[in-house]
Amino acid sequence: MSEVAEQAGTEQLRDEANAEAVRRMTGADPVLVDVQAAGDAVPGMTANTILTSGPPMPWPEYYGGQRNAVIYGALYEGLASDPDDADARLRDGRIVLGATHDHGCVGSVAGIYTASMPVFVVENGPGGNRAYCNFYEGESRHRLNYGSYNDDVRRGLDYLRDELAPVLKEVIGATGGVPLKPLIGRALRMGDELHSRNTAATTLFTRELTPQFLDYAVRVSSERALSTLRFFFASDYSFLRLSMAAAKAMADAARDVPASSVVTAMTISCRNFAIRVSGLGDEWFAGPLPEVSCKLFDGFTPDDVEWIGGESHITETVGLGGFAQAAAFGLQAYQGGSAQEMARMNALMYEITVAEHPDFLIPYFGFRGSPVGIDIFRVNQTGITPVIDGGLAGKDGGQVGAGILRAPVECFAAAEQAYRRQYPA
Amino acid sequence: MSEVAEQAGTEQLRDEANAEAVRRMTGADPVLVDVQAAGDAVPGMTANTILTSGPPMPWPEYYGGQRNAVIYGALYEGLASDPDDADARLRDGRIVLGATHDHGCVGSVAGIYTASMPVFVVENGPGGNRAYCNFYEGESRHRLNYGSYNDDVRRGLDYLRDELAPVLKEVIGATGGVPLKPLIGRALRMGDELHSRNTAATTLFTRELTPQFLDYAVRVSSERALSTLRFFFASDYSFLRLSMAAAKAMADAARDVPASSVVTAMTISCRNFAIRVSGLGDEWFAGPLPEVSCKLFDGFTPDDVEWIGGESHITETVGLGGFAQAAAFGLQAYQGGSAQEMARMNALMYEITVAEHPDFLIPYFGFRGSPVGIDIFRVNQTGITPVIDGGLAGKDGGQVGAGILRAPVECFAAAEQAYRRQYPA
Repeated sequence: MSEVAEQAGTEQLRDEANAEAVRRMTGADPVLVDVQAAGDAVPGMTANTILTSGPPMPWPEYYGGQRNAVIYGALYEGLASDPDDADARLRDGRIVLGATHDHGCVGSVAGIYTASMPVFVVENGPGGNRAYCNFYEGESRHRLNYGSYNDDVRRGLDYLRDELAPVLKEVIGATGGVPLKPLIGRALRMGDELHSRNTAATTLFTRELTPQFLDYAVRVSSERALSTLRFFFASDYSFLRLSMAAAKAMADAARDVPASSVVTAMTISCRNFAIRVSGLGDEWFAGPLPEVSCKLFDGFTPDDVEWIGGESHITETVGLGGFAQAAAFGLQAYQGGSAQEMARMNALMYEITVAEHPDFLIPYFGFRGSPVGIDIFRVNQTGITPVIDGGLAGKDGGQVGAGILRAPVECFAAAEQAYRRQYPA
Repeated sequence: MSEVAEQAGTEQLRDEANAEAVRRMTGADPVLVDVQAAGDAVPGMTANTILTSGPPMPWPEYYGGQRNAVIYGALYEGLASDPDDADARLRDGRIVLGATHDHGCVGSVAGIYTASMPVFVVENGPGGNRAYCNFYEGESRHRLNYGSYNDDVRRGLDYLRDELAPVLKEVIGATGGVPLKPLIGRALRMGDELHSRNTAATTLFTRELTPQFLDYAVRVSSERALSTLRFFFASDYSFLRLSMAAAKAMADAARDVPASSVVTAMTISCRNFAIRVSGLGDEWFAGPLPEVSCKLFDGFTPDDVEWIGGESHITETVGLGGFAQAAAFGLQAYQGGSAQEMARMNALMYEITVAEHPDFLIPYFGFRGSPVGIDIFRVNQTGITPVIDGGLAGKDGGQVGAGILRAPVECFAAAEQAYRRQYPA
């Protein structure tokens, strides 16, 4: 067979594999089925496990805000008496540190999971897989996932675990399962892109649960029902954790399709940006930390920004976030930019994806499906890298702003090399 | 004084008057304060009064669907035993026919008000004026306001009056008043333009009332609370009647500013399109029925469209609807067009208005305020007429589609003539 024919055959095989991967990704049907403690729900999670964002790394590799966040997680969970004790236990393995993605989870920013923390349990029926995400901590810029820890942060986490989670568990249980894809599709028509803007989705989610909340109020406690609803009413970001869990369930459905060059996960640690590719198993392909155009909260400068991890761009992996930002022009207020630039960047993403989402439609593009299925080959051919909406952490802990990140091309180059080794023409 | 100086002086006076009119319009603060029977709330409304859309006309002038709708209103209210009896009573004045705008009301399509129908009562504190709108009848294309009447329509109206209104009255009363402007401003960031799209506003409205609904469920009846909420959950249009009442309260605040050439109302009857102007009192300036670009429901042709009245373009009068359609690209699915064309038409409205709304911001335009304060002189100078989103009625009754209407230039020409007579240079 000639080299050209071989090449064409390889590309056809890859196209077919990519079509299958995207079919599984876009055909996934994520349904919120439960709220459980991470220790009970998350596969491989034990009482002394802490999960954090990014590819797995030895404990000594962590530094700065992400290192702090892991230590704060240990303190919060009562796994250590003080930061030095936590460090010692993390060094010798009495505290087990894991990577969220290896446990069906995704981390928001530092992405700290400990055993007692409640998680949303999302099930993808067609793929038979489950995904998990812990809860949004509220409006304060000081949150554990942004590397902050103090009495307020601790009390907030206690509230999520002891007050919010039990009510949500009962209310969600009473629904028999909340299909998340219709909520996401609808929120895209209401100005959300489901990463940095979740205003409509959060509202639609509570609306969906209103009959169960009313019932809970009548049967159990109207005070607790109202307190739970008030948390959601005050927090336009609450749904992000559900869009992340839904996206993880959708992305995982596309894993392990032989010869597929479609990206199934993107992650950030304090050290690097990394991607996983469907046909290349669970290997992470790393590159440098991303470039960012940011809009900082008052009083902060770009020097205040610190990378402490992040995996909410699982939403971009499935055609949301930056890949649907033309649905969410309101985001300008939060992350800067202009509507025209947002539309331009969103349109560019069609150059590096293999399909248009059948259910995630962008009104501004005449209801064209969002670009979905990032192909490492297209990224390398065009030099166009995925665009990602994201929040930014500060060196002193806490959120300092938001912005648009560009994934580094190096991950995609490394993945292509591995692909060519594994699938020679 | 030279003619040129006189002209400049006149224009300066008019500009100042227009600035004042728009200041009152945009400074209005419409608050939903109550639900009452029209007969109790609406000034000048009596047990045997029927209000309908459009400038006042003698009964014999009404024809087609609007004539039918008035007769159906008489039957619904029990003012006549059959259509012939209703006609006789309307002819001799035993049934009094009035124009909605003369009673602080605005009509959706035919806009039929009878004494027992519930209305939202909206108060503008700064202007000390009140406005009213009756309720959305639900999702069926057959509704009294679209000139349909049968057992289903009657039962639907009974449900609004006997089931929905009492619950809403109690729930709204318990809030102490629901400020509508913040809801409208927020809905503009969530894909609504508050005329043909009210999805976000309807959702935000029920969210605002959730604490009171929970309380009602616990104290009175969870079944009735849920039934009321379900009506809103099923009806993305429910809020339109609140945006109309809010818009009427805002527009009326700008009435009667001497020398102002700003439009304070636009109306449609079965015979004509007409406008009112701030500095010209309560006179209506009429022109022909509007041109329309429409998207019809399956099975209908443009020949099926019939004009039976309409005043929901009070929303356009205050900078919403077609004047904010670049906030609501999702509308393409309902009324046709493209995002680019919607943005272009919306931008054009800045050519014929005197201000940008301080609170109604359009994300796609970089949060520029919506164009507000239609100036009859600018319309006549540019030949650009107001663009209006609207639903379309059919000859057999019922809604047959939706589309974009252009106000006829003749009204503005007639108003300018009257203005020049009343305010000679």
